[in-house]
Amino acid sequence: MMPEDWPYCVPGLPDTAFCRGDVPMTRREVRILTLCLGRLRIDSVVYDVGAGTGSLTVEAALLARAGRVYAIERDERALSLLAKNVERYRLMNVSVVRGEAPVAWQDLPPADRILVGGSGGHLAEILAMAPAKLRPQGRLVVNAVTMETLALATAQSPGLGPVEVICVNVARLEKKNGTRLWRGHNPVYVICADKRGEYDEREV
Amino acid sequence: MMPEDWPYCVPGLPDTAFCRGDVPMTRREVRILTLCLGRLRIDSVVYDVGAGTGSLTVEAALLARAGRVYAIERDERALSLLAKNVERYRLMNVSVVRGEAPVAWQDLPPADRILVGGSGGHLAEILAMAPAKLRPQGRLVVNAVTMETLALATAQSPGLGPVEVICVNVARLEKKNGTRLWRGHNPVYVICADKRGEYDEREV
Amino acid sequence: MMPEDWPYCVPGLPDTAFCRGDVPMTRREVRILTLCLGRLRIDSVVYDVGAGTGSLTVEAALLARAGRVYAIERDERALSLLAKNVERYRLMNVSVVRGEAPVAWQDLPPADRILVGGSGGHLAEILAMAPAKLRPQGRLVVNAVTMETLALATAQSPGLGPVEVICVNVARLEKKNGTRLWRGHNPVYVICADKRGEYDEREV
Amino acid sequence: MMPEDWPYCVPGLPDTAFCRGDVPMTRREVRILTLCLGRLRIDSVVYDVGAGTGSLTVEAALLARAGRVYAIERDERALSLLAKNVERYRLMNVSVVRGEAPVAWQDLPPADRILVGGSGGHLAEILAMAPAKLRPQGRLVVNAVTMETLALATAQSPGLGPVEVICVNVARLEKKNGTRLWRGHNPVYVICADKRGEYDEREV
Repeated sequence: MMPEDWPYCVPGLPDTAFCRGDVPMTRREVRILTLCLGRLRIDSVVYDVGAGTGSLTVEAALLARAGRVYAIERDERALSLLAKNVERYRLMNVSVVRGEAPVAWQDLPPADRILVGGSGGHLAEILAMAPAKLRPQGRLVVNAVTMETLALATAQSPGLGPVEVICVNVARLEKKNGTRLWRGHNPVYVICADKRGEYDEREV
Repeated sequence: MMPEDWPYCVPGLPDTAFCRGDVPMTRREVRILTLCLGRLRIDSVVYDVGAGTGSLTVEAALLARAGRVYAIERDERALSLLAKNVERYRLMNVSVVRGEAPVAWQDLPPADRILVGGSGGHLAEILAMAPAKLRPQGRLVVNAVTMETLALATAQSPGLGPVEVICVNVARLEKKNGTRLWRGHNPVYVICADKRGEYDEREV
Repeated sequence: MMPEDWPYCVPGLPDTAFCRGDVPMTRREVRILTLCLGRLRIDSVVYDVGAGTGSLTVEAALLARAGRVYAIERDERALSLLAKNVERYRLMNVSVVRGEAPVAWQDLPPADRILVGGSGGHLAEILAMAPAKLRPQGRLVVNAVTMETLALATAQSPGLGPVEVICVNVARLEKKNGTRLWRGHNPVYVICADKRGEYDEREV
Repeated sequence: MMPEDWPYCVPGLPDTAFCRGDVPMTRREVRILTLCLGRLRIDSVVYDVGAGTGSLTVEAALLARAGRVYAIERDERALSLLAKNVERYRLMNVSVVRGEAPVAWQDLPPADRILVGGSGGHLAEILAMAPAKLRPQGRLVVNAVTMETLALATAQSPGLGPVEVICVNVARLEKKNGTRLWRGHNPVYVICADKRGEYDEREV
């Protein structure tokens, strides 16, 4: 476990820096790409939808330190881990929201960034409601690990600009029995769209 | 081309944000992972070895805005592009150094981070000299696109802690003839090592 | 260029074994996986839909030497390359069919295997018509390089059994300027379905 | 479990077709590429070094049905699984050899193909001894899953022609909780070299 101190100006906490349970956790490299393609600002209001263990919430809050991160999660076990991880990093700019998006975000202030790690089967509604909840120049990022999420998130949504999509495959070299083994992670699709239509994927 | 303004607190400029020539350029996703795994600080002194077009230099300088980036490059065409890209972003904390590492870094102040994108055949010397040039808690990151660099950089070097290695495969969905085509990038190996021996790759 | 002789009992001709033009060609590793996941038999009747340069046609015909391969292609330039490649390997069990599936296959004898490399925008019709054209125990394999084809081919089709899907990323080590560079290919999705419903993807 | 009958002229048995234990098993897609890049002939004499559960042995024996496969394995548990899998497919052209290569192959007839899945730390000796044991036009294929094996196998060996190397990343779409999840496999490097020097990797 690393110290609960991250003096760097970039995301990238090791996976071991978080309390984990049976809840799946977004891996470091995917967290990094999600936050960077999500173009966080120091003052961003961020929704972390399906926050899980809170690894993305913690990294987002370390970056948007003059903003606020709303960690939306419905699962009790995940909520408990989430609370522990937020506490460990003494983050004052995180609010945990119990429930499911988009219903759970109804009373929240508008968002600059909506990051969707898990959608609990409500992705279509999330995509439909996101433009109304996003501020001008707001941005949505979806992490897809299933074919269903990929197909839905890459379709054009009304109120969102052109969609940018990347697929990320990471392998890590891990020590095992005196050798170093290539360990592949599951592929993750990172899908981004701006509220404004100005963003053009040909530019990226 | 995107505006020469990046109000975000994360790396991730689009590839089209840079003047490019025939010189190969590190792609956005690899720049992001290099800078994040490189654990930049706001006050880091960074060497960008084999700076090429300067895309990594620009992103590093935007992050380490209270530090300084020394962009080391030997190729004349690359140096010209590098100058243009640094100028475009009005970066006052970049110094361009003509020549080849490690010779070219002899007179530079010690580094917090050494990022090696291209080594011009001098990787063995760079690895050998890096510990002496790195400050305590300094960190080295090598991007390997060839088998030779991979083999050399993943071997243990005296004075450097355990090596962490990841392989990154990114594909982007690109518009073509009315469809969206998956375009795969070349795999890049990102190899990190700390000067101090405390860093333990099992922790990451 | 390799000799026009392939004394082996497996697919895997080098890409340089084929006359090529501007027409995109399925790469060796993807040809291999398509034919093997397609479970060819020595006596299979195979449709190669969107045959292009004919690289898959040639390999299929070398395997199904007591069967027949119908190479369906609409593009004139591709048809000319296709003819050259079939001739080069002196294949007597290939019939070139000018036109577009599924219309072009109307008068052909029923198929044991339908391999879809390119569908010219008719994939929905091809999937709809395939069950009627496939013999019992017939099998369909689609190679998807676009998001549109992937989304369509992975949806369940009436008359076809459960769908198996893999994504293949291959990189080759290539000599360049005295080093060996990792060159990534575009990812290809290989989607298989049996006519019969017995095939269960959990078994694979 | 699939029927113990494979009427096809290509490799590609499902992974579930084999009795498995704690012993790691080469996955279907890698078996396919190993056998195809290994250019098996119907009459090939094949050594399967580090045969493990025997999945590659079984597929090789189904292809080289007029040849013979020598399955070399030292681990007792693996040997027991290997025997079961060979028996299940009623293969008369397999000989199980207890021991470690290259010592264990000393008394065997010369090989047309040497496939190295596991080398038990003896890869350097295997590479050194392979040319003497291979017949003219013989071929060696190494599957590397560790950095050590990759570095060793991609270095030029005396008596072997230029080396061809690919890296294979496969992800499979798997059913899970009513959705279909992308599951990534560990990357595998497939390294081929001919005994004769005629083989030129630029040709491939």
